[in-house]
Amino acid sequence: MASLHPFDPITPGEINLATKILHGAFPGVSLRYKKIDMQEPIKAEVIPYIEAERLGKPLPRKPTRLLQVLFHRLDTGAFFKALLNADAKSIVYAKELPKEIQGPVDVDEMIAIEQLCLSHPVVQAEIAKLQLPAGVTVCNDPWIYGTDDSKESRRLFQCYMYIVGTDHPQNNHYSTPCKFSPVFDALTHELVRMDYLPTGRDHTTTDTQPWKPVETIQYAHDLLPEALRSDLKPYIVQQPQGPSFTANGNEVTWQKWRFRVGFNSREGMVIHNLTYDNRSVFYRLSMSEMTVPYGDPRAPFHRKQAFDVGDVGFGITANQLSLGCDCLGHIKYFDGYRCDSKGTPIQLQNVICLHEQDAGLQHKHTNYRSGAATVVRNRQLVLQMICTVANYEYIFAFIFDQAANIELEVRATGILSTVPFDNEVPGTTVPWGTNVGPGVMAPYHQHLFSFRMDPAIDGYKNTVIYQDSVPMVEDAQTNPYLVGYTTDETIMKKSGTADTAVDKNRVFKIRNDSKINEITYKPMSYKLMAAPAQMMLASPRSFGQKRAMFGTKPIWVTKYRDDELFAASEFTNQSKNSEGVETWAARNEDVEDEDLVLWHTFGLTHNPRIEDFPVMPMERVSVMLKPDGFFTKNPALDVPPSTQAFNKSTLHLEASSCCSGTKL
Amino acid sequence: MASLHPFDPITPGEINLATKILHGAFPGVSLRYKKIDMQEPIKAEVIPYIEAERLGKPLPRKPTRLLQVLFHRLDTGAFFKALLNADAKSIVYAKELPKEIQGPVDVDEMIAIEQLCLSHPVVQAEIAKLQLPAGVTVCNDPWIYGTDDSKESRRLFQCYMYIVGTDHPQNNHYSTPCKFSPVFDALTHELVRMDYLPTGRDHTTTDTQPWKPVETIQYAHDLLPEALRSDLKPYIVQQPQGPSFTANGNEVTWQKWRFRVGFNSREGMVIHNLTYDNRSVFYRLSMSEMTVPYGDPRAPFHRKQAFDVGDVGFGITANQLSLGCDCLGHIKYFDGYRCDSKGTPIQLQNVICLHEQDAGLQHKHTNYRSGAATVVRNRQLVLQMICTVANYEYIFAFIFDQAANIELEVRATGILSTVPFDNEVPGTTVPWGTNVGPGVMAPYHQHLFSFRMDPAIDGYKNTVIYQDSVPMVEDAQTNPYLVGYTTDETIMKKSGTADTAVDKNRVFKIRNDSKINEITYKPMSYKLMAAPAQMMLASPRSFGQKRAMFGTKPIWVTKYRDDELFAASEFTNQSKNSEGVETWAARNEDVEDEDLVLWHTFGLTHNPRIEDFPVMPMERVSVMLKPDGFFTKNPALDVPPSTQAFNKSTLHLEASSCCSGTKL
Repeated sequence: MASLHPFDPITPGEINLATKILHGAFPGVSLRYKKIDMQEPIKAEVIPYIEAERLGKPLPRKPTRLLQVLFHRLDTGAFFKALLNADAKSIVYAKELPKEIQGPVDVDEMIAIEQLCLSHPVVQAEIAKLQLPAGVTVCNDPWIYGTDDSKESRRLFQCYMYIVGTDHPQNNHYSTPCKFSPVFDALTHELVRMDYLPTGRDHTTTDTQPWKPVETIQYAHDLLPEALRSDLKPYIVQQPQGPSFTANGNEVTWQKWRFRVGFNSREGMVIHNLTYDNRSVFYRLSMSEMTVPYGDPRAPFHRKQAFDVGDVGFGITANQLSLGCDCLGHIKYFDGYRCDSKGTPIQLQNVICLHEQDAGLQHKHTNYRSGAATVVRNRQLVLQMICTVANYEYIFAFIFDQAANIELEVRATGILSTVPFDNEVPGTTVPWGTNVGPGVMAPYHQHLFSFRMDPAIDGYKNTVIYQDSVPMVEDAQTNPYLVGYTTDETIMKKSGTADTAVDKNRVFKIRNDSKINEITYKPMSYKLMAAPAQMMLASPRSFGQKRAMFGTKPIWVTKYRDDELFAASEFTNQSKNSEGVETWAARNEDVEDEDLVLWHTFGLTHNPRIEDFPVMPMERVSVMLKPDGFFTKNPALDVPPSTQAFNKSTLHLEASSCCSGTKL
Repeated sequence: MASLHPFDPITPGEINLATKILHGAFPGVSLRYKKIDMQEPIKAEVIPYIEAERLGKPLPRKPTRLLQVLFHRLDTGAFFKALLNADAKSIVYAKELPKEIQGPVDVDEMIAIEQLCLSHPVVQAEIAKLQLPAGVTVCNDPWIYGTDDSKESRRLFQCYMYIVGTDHPQNNHYSTPCKFSPVFDALTHELVRMDYLPTGRDHTTTDTQPWKPVETIQYAHDLLPEALRSDLKPYIVQQPQGPSFTANGNEVTWQKWRFRVGFNSREGMVIHNLTYDNRSVFYRLSMSEMTVPYGDPRAPFHRKQAFDVGDVGFGITANQLSLGCDCLGHIKYFDGYRCDSKGTPIQLQNVICLHEQDAGLQHKHTNYRSGAATVVRNRQLVLQMICTVANYEYIFAFIFDQAANIELEVRATGILSTVPFDNEVPGTTVPWGTNVGPGVMAPYHQHLFSFRMDPAIDGYKNTVIYQDSVPMVEDAQTNPYLVGYTTDETIMKKSGTADTAVDKNRVFKIRNDSKINEITYKPMSYKLMAAPAQMMLASPRSFGQKRAMFGTKPIWVTKYRDDELFAASEFTNQSKNSEGVETWAARNEDVEDEDLVLWHTFGLTHNPRIEDFPVMPMERVSVMLKPDGFFTKNPALDVPPSTQAFNKSTLHLEASSCCSGTKL
């Protein structure tokens, strides 16, 4: 353990240590583990350590290595959270959580609920009514049960049922949803209720009828009715001298950047202690939370509101990536670990990948007099994670470049969450969804992400400001030609929120008020190129909004406190309200020249296109962080020029064509 | 000539034909040519031709091949526009333009003004006052003279002067601007006035004083004070089977796309007759105009308002690209032609490049039960042009993908237009610019682009609508859980304008009301993923705004008419007002189910960072067009899977490190 860095992900040995400690603390009690993971180190303890690393000074004592555990006692059913001291091999606390607190779904639970559902006699009786032909069966996606009752304290799952062909592992069951949906208690395993789904233009439901086979819309290559394209030629990225990055354990260095790759079961990939040219830039960057509220107003669809981070976790849903499928070029993979329900360590191979990419030109100038050109390409370093949350996929990437820019790119792909729909009568549509195939409709929904930025712009005390571009007053002395414009600056002195404002070209900056740029005479800063987006459409009186207040404002600033990592709070599953970033922002604390956290909510209002089915061409959203007065000139000037000797491109010579003839 | 396609760019033979025709029409008169170019064919004439091509039917007679010429009579100085019939070798018209009309700058004129300025005795006297040391000299950028007087009818240039080292062809003169700026009459070659520039925090100017040498901020690799990075490894794109595209003359086919590459001296690269899977999508796509108004309120900077399309032309400023510098992989180049002032054809080699790129994943889904994954990469086709307009560079790319998406990407790079600034006293700043070096300031400015889309969504009669996402009424029957949302649709029945609306997730669609999707029951359409941006900041009473009304609204819809290609009208140089898209939109014509044109104004409010100097890391803006109900499913399903056998990636094996130790 001595060799672990404070930011390193949990190891299998630590998972075993945790179960050993708890086994000793609960003698004779069977425990069912939900999560064993590293706990973020106390910031005040770790900063002296990473500052000594950065400055090349003797390292102080490491911060206490902490582990967190979520588990049930199988004798009482009680749900516990424990914090362990891995250095002392001791329990800091192990507390029983209130009955209404639901932990996230775990892998074993998901499989168990699926099996419970399919084997339940009432469900089997319902399936029998479908009178399915040979070659098809029924499967189900257990869904997190979005809150619609403030008194509910059972742990519930709503199973959405689908008809699926048995002849191929990639048959698209989302093309053929069933019209009934059982609800289960995940602890007692009781069937709580059989819901019947509305299938027409209103809230009406019907009893289960024999299934009428329809054409399914398939995405897998060998299930397509059409032939594959035969004219796509190979495109191979070669790096004969290897990559430009180095990875030493979880520490990555590349083109003046240095950071540590973190991984946990909840957020998945995390960036720790990001520096450029050995200057601190960010203490921690992470996808803190996301929520997907659906716009279909009809029961039980109103309960479809996934919190993919808090309810499930991007770490445990991260794809185990394959060489040559998800990236090109020279690829480094990072593994992670989770526990299963027995507390056994499970290796998650290749859950994060690291590679370089070429992103076209970074800068170019030609002196038109001399014809002499300076051309520099934009080489990037990509740290990527791909998460499958049942039907849907998210591709997250932190992208670094040589001009000290940081990009968070999100690609939404995968399969739309569909509902059954009687659309045989031509023209039948609903105002909250898109027909995507025979008998199947994809409801409108939103994806709202919370990007958590814990800055360290040349130090840990920072200030967030925003700057609007505004016309100058029409004054004959100061603005005689009426073309002048300038900027208005607002300092966020207290924790709180702000709006984006496209019409004012509003720009948010994180600056260090004690570091003044010697040329601009302004504080050194990074600016956030926010992604302005529609905020949550669900009513302020709905559970949908109360549970995800982070989705109501694009910008939040809070004063840093340990343990405030998740925008919708620690426990989102069946939460009644969020008590997350909105609670912390409401403390009205001083955040000027303080240790602060900036949270950006952005997303997609996704009213599906039919082209998004049966698998969705990725929809891309990007947020950037750019230095603004952090340097005294373009930091990428020293990137070598783009030359043919280095790039080895190939000239396309047009085949002489009999049709081209002689031009005049 | 018989072999030319109606959309083909002008040929050297046609340039010679034009001068021959005009020589015959103006016997004994010396003509000074500004422009000889192809004229867009009459749309009503060309549609039967391209429809026959598309449908594989016998080709009808080609539309008349027309050429346009701008020239001066050297005897009278009169400025003419001529339209020629290249088939009949005859003049359609040759009309003298009103005296207040100024044509664009041409290459020979630019060089002549530069030389005129430097050799003028008054300018030389002013330079002498600088008492320059050995090794430096003075150069100048002749600037288009932005209008500030409604009665001005002279052709004027404002020359901005810079001190520049003589020892290297890429010395950055923008780092050392002079404090005086002569104005010339380009026809009489008279010095109109010597302007002195404000150099402090207000409008005060000073007489020319001896120059105090300062450190210059250089961008060229061999002028940098620092060493180049030595740790960037080669990244080579190999296409061993060649590219997936074919180019037959100017016709390009790639992955079900087909289009013709157009080129003219004004817009540069143009897309004609874009089809996907042999279905019409767009008749023509082009960057119609752009304007760069500056926010520095002080004379003479208030006149800095470049129209880089109309005042100069992206065709004549397009870089002649070099293999391996501007793109990777297998690259096809297209040439263009312009005339010089004598009417001689000048070849512009490699002004457009065509290549493929890999843009990460297009779609992915993993069935979490079986673990089976479908992965398809996003191969793209890039048609690119890079324009140098004096100090600044724009990189334009049309990017096509296999999911039938079309992207217009603009990258802004190059060098900021700077002004002298006395900032020796620490803390001296102005509210309309950023200090970027000793004695040099970069004023705030905007870049406003007009993207012209002439749609042909499955036919030439289309409708533009916009759709807002809005919460449903809070009604106990229809929306009992308060989470429902739906879309409001507005049909643009009459030519006019619309605003973007981030808070409503407003989406614009171009649809064909006579083609109904068989599954969605909605008209087939493409949606515009607009780039919401701040519109023009200059006052409505300023010439800055009057000359560029397209910059006041993000969306314009007009009824198609031949000759209405340029958002700020044909002649922008020293224009008093624009009479462009705002005039055509104001006709209040029916545009529902009509031949219409959609114009999107987007851009950057560019308040320079010091990191944007001395050459700017590219700032990227992107607009996309995506099918929306144009197909009945994801059109990229048939793209072959992403496999290691095809992609040949390399696994990074971490060198065993003595520091990694043994983990617990």
